Amino acid sequence: MARKKSKKITALFDRVAFIGIGLIGSSMALAMRRSGLVGSSIACARRAKTRKAALSLDIVDEVTSDCSKAVFGADLVVIATPMGAYEAIAAKIGPSLKPGTILTDVGSVKREAVAAIAPHIPKGVHFVPGHPVAGTEHSGPEAGFADLFEGRWCILTPSSEVSNKAVRKLSTLWRKMGAKVDLMEPDHHDAVLAITSHLPHLIAYTIVGTAADLSDDLKREVIKYSASGFRDFTRIAASDPVMWRDIFLSNRDSILETLQRFTEDLTGLQRAIRRSDGKALEDLFIRTRKIRRGIIGAKQA
Amino acid sequence: MARKKSKKITALFDRVAFIGIGLIGSSMALAMRRSGLVGSSIACARRAKTRKAALSLDIVDEVTSDCSKAVFGADLVVIATPMGAYEAIAAKIGPSLKPGTILTDVGSVKREAVAAIAPHIPKGVHFVPGHPVAGTEHSGPEAGFADLFEGRWCILTPSSEVSNKAVRKLSTLWRKMGAKVDLMEPDHHDAVLAITSHLPHLIAYTIVGTAADLSDDLKREVIKYSASGFRDFTRIAASDPVMWRDIFLSNRDSILETLQRFTEDLTGLQRAIRRSDGKALEDLFIRTRKIRRGIIGAKQA
Repeated sequence: MARKKSKKITALFDRVAFIGIGLIGSSMALAMRRSGLVGSSIACARRAKTRKAALSLDIVDEVTSDCSKAVFGADLVVIATPMGAYEAIAAKIGPSLKPGTILTDVGSVKREAVAAIAPHIPKGVHFVPGHPVAGTEHSGPEAGFADLFEGRWCILTPSSEVSNKAVRKLSTLWRKMGAKVDLMEPDHHDAVLAITSHLPHLIAYTIVGTAADLSDDLKREVIKYSASGFRDFTRIAASDPVMWRDIFLSNRDSILETLQRFTEDLTGLQRAIRRSDGKALEDLFIRTRKIRRGIIGAKQA
Repeated sequence: MARKKSKKITALFDRVAFIGIGLIGSSMALAMRRSGLVGSSIACARRAKTRKAALSLDIVDEVTSDCSKAVFGADLVVIATPMGAYEAIAAKIGPSLKPGTILTDVGSVKREAVAAIAPHIPKGVHFVPGHPVAGTEHSGPEAGFADLFEGRWCILTPSSEVSNKAVRKLSTLWRKMGAKVDLMEPDHHDAVLAITSHLPHLIAYTIVGTAADLSDDLKREVIKYSASGFRDFTRIAASDPVMWRDIFLSNRDSILETLQRFTEDLTGLQRAIRRSDGKALEDLFIRTRKIRRGIIGAKQA
């Protein structure tokens, strides 16, 4: 009991409801719990197995399968499901959200997140869309860990009408979970992430898919000798299938545009190889090495 | 002196000469030294800086800038330079190789390695081309470490005429350095590596190059938010530019063929996104996840 009380003293929120408790939701729950940032917590999950894991791994205090019940009395609601479920969830929880509640999400595409959720949010509820740029190739509550956001960016994309106080409070929460916070327009966010995240995943899925279509013999060898580069792609291409399906559908236009640019560059490189143009190849490789150094300099390596 | 003597007892080779002492050469030298597999060692490097590092880091006993001097008296010669230098090196060292010497290389394309080296090798010298499927994105002697080959594959591609005893001896050396050894035809090796290694590098170079061409503002953001997938590509695309230029030029036909297949698959995925075909996307992503599990099962993750 004493422990609970001491928690309350520094708690930013009295009660948090997670709609979805996969890698991101459970990592947030663990990070909040570790730093005493919330009084009590509840997770809503469709599958009994997920609910059971969330309890047995001590990720949240309570679980439910009913998202409108989950948000009851919560002053922070985090939607952390694949984006395809957003609209139905927003429609269902909207009427149960109490005034003053901060509602956020963690989806990788912000324009669509706003389009799916915003129309269902009652006046007086502060909707601040968010995207923690962090993750691993693992999914589910078992994959969560409190350090996931340490040193990583969380991008918030609030509309100009939302209360500044709510944005500041959510920013504080993310900072206390170890993240650095940036504010951005949803469209700009989606354009940046199309190249830093969505295209790399698309490419990784493609190349691993190309390998999956090989004859069994060759496939066995590809797996055996994967340490030479392919392995890194398979790690990316092991990410949650439903989550990524929804991302590609939600950020379609930005992804197709980025893909177009990539394809042109790939054609150029293909031509350089066909013509044995060693200088063009080397020049490109020297340029790309510089980008890596930029990332190491920015401490995101 | 006592140390040197005890080394000699288990040494497989009396004297090894490394032509080139970058990541792979220096890792081999360190692994051999650690396990007392060679009596003495010498490295040939063009640049004074490299020679100095090889000595000061205690990687080899001696250094030289003259490769024909380096191989004098060696019973093992390892060519570990970018592949573009192979032919000139082979022509230069050929006359200085003593009968019974085992000559090997560590290049990523075997058909070209054979074509460049074999014509210059005198009778009585055993040429056993090799390729340790291991590496990091770092280069130079400073990047080497004795554990690099631990649990990794080394593929040898000897011709049918080469002495079995020499192949067995080189296999033993690789096993004692921690690697697992496979024998393969050069052409087959090149086809497998085109997909496991060369295509992934080509793609990573392209996508990082696409980012390098962005406006400065956007580029800064891409670096900032790289943790979302892009980062892994930049690591691959930071690999040694000259080494990779030579690989792409040497394995041109296999790479172009694999690239063709990849491009077709990418076009299919692009179409699925354009048509919002969620089922096609999810199906692919579930298949690619299985490949990742295969790699984890094969302990190459």
